[in-house]
Order: sequence, then structure tokens, then C-alpha cells
Amino acid sequence: MSDLLLRPVGTVSSPVARPEDAVRQGDEGAPDCWIVLDAAVVDAAAQIAAGDRMIVLTWLHAADRSVLQVHPRDDPGRPLCGVFSTRAQHRPNPIGLHTVEVLGLDGARLHVRGLEAIDGTPVLDLKPVLGPVEGR
Amino acid sequence: MSDLLLRPVGTVSSPVARPEDAVRQGDEGAPDCWIVLDAAVVDAAAQIAAGDRMIVLTWLHAADRSVLQVHPRDDPGRPLCGVFSTRAQHRPNPIGLHTVEVLGLDGARLHVRGLEAIDGTPVLDLKPVLGPVEGR
Repeated sequence: MSDLLLRPVGTVSSPVARPEDAVRQGDEGAPDCWIVLDAAVVDAAAQIAAGDRMIVLTWLHAADRSVLQVHPRDDPGRPLCGVFSTRAQHRPNPIGLHTVEVLGLDGARLHVRGLEAIDGTPVLDLKPVLGPVEGR
Repeated sequence: MSDLLLRPVGTVSSPVARPEDAVRQGDEGAPDCWIVLDAAVVDAAAQIAAGDRMIVLTWLHAADRSVLQVHPRDDPGRPLCGVFSTRAQHRPNPIGLHTVEVLGLDGARLHVRGLEAIDGTPVLDLKPVLGPVEGR
């Protein structure tokens, strides 16, 4: 199968700079952050408004793509589990799936709540939430 | 921003061969189909079992990536809308997001319900559903 080329449409701007800090947030949720859209795709965001709930796809650039199985929650006491049955960042295509709330907009910048991703994470796509929202 | 390389982990095997036939399914849902995993990633699917509800990410290879705005539901009477506020396949990174039910497994093949994608669609990732399921 041939490779496919992603072109990021934006970048996460967050106070969380390191993966180990992101993990520490745990169930308390991520701090509010910004999605800075590429100028070339701003027209695709024309109808986004404060209060919208959206799905954000990111590229988890710190992930190890060779990993096929992990110990859930990084607990070596738990048996290895195929990554397709986990939300581990390490996986063949490390695409992050996040449900966020749009807090506001400022030109090509979207202020969002609920995006657990470190500063500089590439953003791949945004989609509207269509039904009852997934847990994370 | 530099480009990122996706490596498909599998392919959709479906009786639906053409995009126009997929569209016709409308709200009636897609026919059951198969996800044929690449032999190299089968270990990542080790814990998947019949009855699981999963999120499948696909690459909508028939999409036009230059499209930033569309008429919702292809209705020219409706005003143009930025693609990030729609589930249109046409978008800068045409990643499809599907919630499916696993009906059964046969080696590297997963039989699934609810995957609206034409035959040959590349599969990028599978993830467990963690909370109440999204509409589609």
C-alpha cells in the first residue's frame, strides 16, 4: 500500500510543553489552549463559533510508531494489549482524537477547552460533533 | 509546516464500489463489510473481539483536498459552509471518522457494521470507544 501525505492545517499553542506534563493532567483535564490555523485554510473554519463542540484530529508527533502492544496505563503489572484496543499515543499512525469546546475565536486562532496535546502538536482536521459526545 | 506520512494499516473490503452508491445508502446505513488488516500490524488488534464498538479512521481517497467550503448535503440552495463545520469528505486532510460494531474476526479480517466507506478505502487507525457513542 502506498504512503499518504498529510498536510497539517494548524498547530496547538499550549502552556503544556512536555509530554510528561501532559500526562500529569490525568483526569483533571488539559488547560485551555489555542489552535492556530494555517492562513491557507481559514475559509474552512468560517462557521465555527464560540460554544461549538468539535472533534479535533491531531498528529501525536512524539509517539513511537513501531509500537503494536502496550501495558494499559503504562502499568507493567497489566498484560500487554494491542494498541488498537487502547488510546495509547504509540501506534502505527499516531492520530489523536479529541472532543473540545470552542471558547472563542480571534482571526485564525481558536481558543478551545479539552484538548490534551502538547505545544506544537500538528492539527490535521476539525469536524462537528453530530451526536451525543464521546467520553474524550 | 512539513508534511507527515501516513502508512495505511489495512483496507476496507465492501460490496460498495463507487462513491455514488455509498451516498445512496443515506440514513439507511452502510452494508456490513470487512477491514482487512496488514499482516504487519495484526498484533495491534490482538484484543479486539466480536461485540466491541470501535472508532475507525479511514483515508477518503476519492476526496478533493482543495475544497474549503461546501454546500451542506450537496444542496446548492444552502449557503456555502466551511468544511470544518461539516462531515463532507472534501477537506484538506480527508480523514473519515466512523463508529462501527465488530461482528466477528477471521485472522487479519474484521467483519464490521456501520462503516460507510467504499471498497478499497485505506484504514489508518482503530480506537476503542470510551464513552457514550457519537452519532456516526
